[in-house]
Amino acid sequence: MNPTIKAIGRKLRLGMIGGGPGSFIGEVHRIAARMDDRYALVATMLSSNPQKSKEAGISLGITSDRAYSTADELFKKESDREDQIDVLAIMTPNDSHYALSCRTIEKQWAIICDKPLTTKLDDAIDLVKKVNDSNTIFCQTFNYTGYPLVRHAREMVRNGDLGDIHMVKVEYIQGHNATLHEAEETENPHWKMFPEKVGPSVVLGDIGTHAHHLTRFITGEEVVRVCADVGAVVPGREFDDYAGVLIRLENGARGTMFITQAGAGAEHGLNIRVFGSKGTIEWHQERAGQMIYTPIASPMQLIKRDGPGMYPAAKRAIRVSFGHPEAFYEAFANLYKDTADAITAKMNGKPLSTDEIEFPTVEDGAKGVKFVEACKESTQNGSVWTDSVLDV
Amino acid sequence: MNPTIKAIGRKLRLGMIGGGPGSFIGEVHRIAARMDDRYALVATMLSSNPQKSKEAGISLGITSDRAYSTADELFKKESDREDQIDVLAIMTPNDSHYALSCRTIEKQWAIICDKPLTTKLDDAIDLVKKVNDSNTIFCQTFNYTGYPLVRHAREMVRNGDLGDIHMVKVEYIQGHNATLHEAEETENPHWKMFPEKVGPSVVLGDIGTHAHHLTRFITGEEVVRVCADVGAVVPGREFDDYAGVLIRLENGARGTMFITQAGAGAEHGLNIRVFGSKGTIEWHQERAGQMIYTPIASPMQLIKRDGPGMYPAAKRAIRVSFGHPEAFYEAFANLYKDTADAITAKMNGKPLSTDEIEFPTVEDGAKGVKFVEACKESTQNGSVWTDSVLDV
Amino acid sequence: MNPTIKAIGRKLRLGMIGGGPGSFIGEVHRIAARMDDRYALVATMLSSNPQKSKEAGISLGITSDRAYSTADELFKKESDREDQIDVLAIMTPNDSHYALSCRTIEKQWAIICDKPLTTKLDDAIDLVKKVNDSNTIFCQTFNYTGYPLVRHAREMVRNGDLGDIHMVKVEYIQGHNATLHEAEETENPHWKMFPEKVGPSVVLGDIGTHAHHLTRFITGEEVVRVCADVGAVVPGREFDDYAGVLIRLENGARGTMFITQAGAGAEHGLNIRVFGSKGTIEWHQERAGQMIYTPIASPMQLIKRDGPGMYPAAKRAIRVSFGHPEAFYEAFANLYKDTADAITAKMNGKPLSTDEIEFPTVEDGAKGVKFVEACKESTQNGSVWTDSVLDV
Amino acid sequence: MNPTIKAIGRKLRLGMIGGGPGSFIGEVHRIAARMDDRYALVATMLSSNPQKSKEAGISLGITSDRAYSTADELFKKESDREDQIDVLAIMTPNDSHYALSCRTIEKQWAIICDKPLTTKLDDAIDLVKKVNDSNTIFCQTFNYTGYPLVRHAREMVRNGDLGDIHMVKVEYIQGHNATLHEAEETENPHWKMFPEKVGPSVVLGDIGTHAHHLTRFITGEEVVRVCADVGAVVPGREFDDYAGVLIRLENGARGTMFITQAGAGAEHGLNIRVFGSKGTIEWHQERAGQMIYTPIASPMQLIKRDGPGMYPAAKRAIRVSFGHPEAFYEAFANLYKDTADAITAKMNGKPLSTDEIEFPTVEDGAKGVKFVEACKESTQNGSVWTDSVLDV
Repeated sequence: MNPTIKAIGRKLRLGMIGGGPGSFIGEVHRIAARMDDRYALVATMLSSNPQKSKEAGISLGITSDRAYSTADELFKKESDREDQIDVLAIMTPNDSHYALSCRTIEKQWAIICDKPLTTKLDDAIDLVKKVNDSNTIFCQTFNYTGYPLVRHAREMVRNGDLGDIHMVKVEYIQGHNATLHEAEETENPHWKMFPEKVGPSVVLGDIGTHAHHLTRFITGEEVVRVCADVGAVVPGREFDDYAGVLIRLENGARGTMFITQAGAGAEHGLNIRVFGSKGTIEWHQERAGQMIYTPIASPMQLIKRDGPGMYPAAKRAIRVSFGHPEAFYEAFANLYKDTADAITAKMNGKPLSTDEIEFPTVEDGAKGVKFVEACKESTQNGSVWTDSVLDV
Repeated sequence: MNPTIKAIGRKLRLGMIGGGPGSFIGEVHRIAARMDDRYALVATMLSSNPQKSKEAGISLGITSDRAYSTADELFKKESDREDQIDVLAIMTPNDSHYALSCRTIEKQWAIICDKPLTTKLDDAIDLVKKVNDSNTIFCQTFNYTGYPLVRHAREMVRNGDLGDIHMVKVEYIQGHNATLHEAEETENPHWKMFPEKVGPSVVLGDIGTHAHHLTRFITGEEVVRVCADVGAVVPGREFDDYAGVLIRLENGARGTMFITQAGAGAEHGLNIRVFGSKGTIEWHQERAGQMIYTPIASPMQLIKRDGPGMYPAAKRAIRVSFGHPEAFYEAFANLYKDTADAITAKMNGKPLSTDEIEFPTVEDGAKGVKFVEACKESTQNGSVWTDSVLDV
Repeated sequence: MNPTIKAIGRKLRLGMIGGGPGSFIGEVHRIAARMDDRYALVATMLSSNPQKSKEAGISLGITSDRAYSTADELFKKESDREDQIDVLAIMTPNDSHYALSCRTIEKQWAIICDKPLTTKLDDAIDLVKKVNDSNTIFCQTFNYTGYPLVRHAREMVRNGDLGDIHMVKVEYIQGHNATLHEAEETENPHWKMFPEKVGPSVVLGDIGTHAHHLTRFITGEEVVRVCADVGAVVPGREFDDYAGVLIRLENGARGTMFITQAGAGAEHGLNIRVFGSKGTIEWHQERAGQMIYTPIASPMQLIKRDGPGMYPAAKRAIRVSFGHPEAFYEAFANLYKDTADAITAKMNGKPLSTDEIEFPTVEDGAKGVKFVEACKESTQNGSVWTDSVLDV
Repeated sequence: MNPTIKAIGRKLRLGMIGGGPGSFIGEVHRIAARMDDRYALVATMLSSNPQKSKEAGISLGITSDRAYSTADELFKKESDREDQIDVLAIMTPNDSHYALSCRTIEKQWAIICDKPLTTKLDDAIDLVKKVNDSNTIFCQTFNYTGYPLVRHAREMVRNGDLGDIHMVKVEYIQGHNATLHEAEETENPHWKMFPEKVGPSVVLGDIGTHAHHLTRFITGEEVVRVCADVGAVVPGREFDDYAGVLIRLENGARGTMFITQAGAGAEHGLNIRVFGSKGTIEWHQERAGQMIYTPIASPMQLIKRDGPGMYPAAKRAIRVSFGHPEAFYEAFANLYKDTADAITAKMNGKPLSTDEIEFPTVEDGAKGVKFVEACKESTQNGSVWTDSVLDV
């Protein structure tokens, strides 16, 4: 059944800001929101061009009065409605996340916000405070944690299946910046070409924060120090496209990260290998439905999504049975589903405890911002070990 | 944008019969229908138990007046409405497909129907006639043809990339019947245990028809003769769980099929390898985002979904870019999307031509029923070569 | 240490007939024979051209007096020597295996002979008798049984890890006959183009016998009946390049085989999947160092060569430890090693029992010949079920 | 034919020092030496225990007078012989490589020596000088460069297939030190537990030097700077088992290395990925017969050993045709084969030029020693960037 309809008699009312026609992430959010039928998309602001924004909303089936032209209009008119939105999904350029989140908090709507959380660490810290003070439900879309086997991996660590964590190896290898394509795109450059919109690092803001969060999510350990080499490997490039990072976890475990968007012909290449005293696991996003598990003195296992032995937290993230692969949208949708659970529970006066919340939070987002800053600082100081702890 | 809203100003109104709570296929249809936001599910009949049927509909958010208790009620009350459904999705047991489809044709609604088409060949032939005479849009859910790389495979054959087709090897290996579990399930046996509900063969009706259609879809050739060995490999079983089939295609190509639901520990195991005079392709549903292509004197290629060189027909079946895997739901949703295109076009007075229709049709379904009968007949006659052509 | 030197104070003296310079199989035998240092190659007859034969022997380091020009010379002069060869390896065209083996038996040398055993079933049966009557050590080089994981697979079946065997699926897919290359090779055609040299079937004699033996070796069951479709899929070809076979094992298990040398771009493609009541195993020669094992309700395992849990018989077939791959030569060499063990033991008056013999025997070879004949007969009679039992 | 016999009328006479019964590497050397029949093993010193040394030699078939008890005896008696050895293979503990090599140079024998070259950088530099001054043929067994596809990778870089090299990622992940097993092995500890025998780093000496050489071999670039984190991840361990290294190549390319022997359940895990401006290649030792190649805008290729398009240098390293896998021994044997070519050519008065030498040399060994020292120094100074250039 539909747990939200059961609990509150209707779907949640969802607003979206950013993610207009032609954007990659906008369509992802919309499909994810529809997947489990817990949300009705009722209000939009889809483009910085007011006319385009309105037209795009209408073309998606939004009624004319809620296909807003500007963010101001959305915030004002929605908050005046009886049937105002319950939650706002924010997928605008990075530098606007902070201000838009603050305004959403004021309206007492829940927030689903793209990463990185902010472009400045101070903003991130302030946002954590505001979210906590206001008791806002805030989902930071580190969407790879929505994969069932990623959750299973976390459970394996929590349950001691791997023993003590000794090492971690993380890669995120994309290829869309393998050439100096930006030299040709002078007409209408993408906002990611502008440091002030992106934040201190393109490659780390875009994908490094995913790598960082995935590490923390699965190991349950904070990344406490980094020794980083961040820069551009493609000659002529003015922003960074590569980061090699040596890391130390809270418990003393060591690791390396290899993060790039300049891998010629690379597919996507997010993968993580976590080495414990009793065994090792390895997961690749490109083959998200399986995880390699090497217990120290037993045969290697290929753990399959929905196969024998799934932990309950992983089971809950699965929709279709063994053998029928699930993938990117389904994982993204799990964050929407989990957020719906949290909003619904709060509406019913039984808010979820921290332990029950499966989706990444504003604190996770802020720690990602700290990681980006620490890697840049380390690099600027000649790749010295740099503290990356953020206590929020 | 949403092409259906653009074309007709609203989403298509969808009804569902069968596929209630707890059913595997019901949830698949619903997620597929939502994926691209082209349908609004407005009417349901979800269980043979009238009370359960109504409650289940309401729990999915269907308004009380359209959460029907019985099929009769659905057909009667919907057809009386101004805003009656445009299309009915049928996912009841096999033996009801024929009658329900006939009634739907009478109402002039489009049909999305699960396979096998019918349990009797005569019914299948009659249904083809009725669908054609009435100009009904009929989608038979051979859902594996919704995978982008399956469509790419078909285009490769059509474009001569493989040269003449010489051989084909098809496997469909599931594991849920590896034990004699039915011996324990005497209380409330699944309808698939009853031949009269299933049709002449469990294993062929369930998955053999998929293997058969996939072969025809990719090669563009009919399966004209079969030499089959169909039976039960699990001792004590009263229905079939295995089929080994030697086949001949229309153009003289030879092939084998290995189809079973009794493969201990098997995941899903639908795969096909098509050998041509210039190269060979191989696709596995379990790793649906890649296809192995071995041109005769060039290095082996791993063709990736949305990678370089996709044919347009494959491109159109892709939602999210390279590196972000898509899977089962997305493939299934492609049949819904393609059906929406056909319905919308017809509503606008510009019906799609046969060539423009991507989804499997009633003819495809009927040919599957003929294949099942031919395999059973071959087996009964001592595995002799048996004609499996159906000219409809 | 070197067990042969330890046991008899010297290496075994090896002769070779056939397999001259430029032949694929000759070099394979020589490397295999050297691998474990149990043999000294001391006598050769390497070509049907007497002069070439002698020169080739000398170029390999054979002394001039034992680099023979003809088979007659080899048999005559070697048997006159005090230090005559202990064992003769036969790798001439198929139609000579029988006569050469008979002559070798007369000399009381051991035999290592390529497959197929003979081109005629009567010869095969007679050879079995002669070998047994004379107590000759005879190794038929079904070399794929030399892979450690193939032996592990057999042990898993023997030990009941898979339960009762229900189904088997075997493939052998090569590509060198994907084109009608023989049309261009009229000058100096390969002997495999001549039926009288090859026997009843090229594709079955060459690789079908491997598939047949591998099935028997792992399952421990005879193939008792076949229903076969053998023929040429490449237009214009006068010999067969494809065989689809439905099979029945002794215990009632069912299976299919897909055997071809006309798979465009195919690599080698020998693989087998054995389905039991408790689990399934799958092995591919191209990734010989791993085997997939799916126990019925536990996670899938990737069993690695020399990984945890190897059975002793598999362990004995391993030279280098975990992580350092072994491959084709090492597997082939295991047959040489096992044959050396048998010869050495016999020399020491402690011949190995049937149970202790790991290498394929003359009986295995004869059963392969029967299989080829049964498949051809089945095809000629319209793919009817045909008995393939040979009791020798 | 056998090129050595053809060129000099006999096989090369090989001596071995170290690598006695039960040693992993001894048997590897012996099988490698036999593979192509270019060497006759005629003299041995196999153990530091004189009696064991002699007995072991005899058990391998060495004549009693050349199964030496001590190194002194070997050097003395061999050099007195007319038929003295042509080449000495050294596989003793690391700290003896220098002295034994110096003595071998004095005897004017060629050398095949295990890595790391020496335990002290000064010794390495001195050895390079001595080898060059004496014109000694010296093969340092960085055996992974013997794999055909590794050579193909180097050729691809040389031929510009990848364009400019931008990044490199190298891993070497073994598992035998995943537990504190040394705590149990107090009786008869392995020499690798003693820093004075091993050199500055266990993990880098053992496998880091392989990773370093493979990087240089394929990219054709020196590793000019390192920023390293070397240490023990297993609590209680007194030697290092992990190294994370950020690197800079000569041409400015950036990279990371992840090197460990403490990966629980790890198989072997040597792999390298080289990213160029036009494409990327990736090779794993565990599946040595294939290499992934992603040209920047064409489909991903799986380059197979002996498949279409092999460069001649790779072809020369292949023994058996496509589809018949080769592996560890064959790769190791390629170093022996290439060394035989060099020795034979020199004997014939036509020494190979530097360009014609395929095997790793003493310079390569010395650069490995420098890399180890640079990584240790970097770590001791807090992971600062440290020069790793050695001009020899």
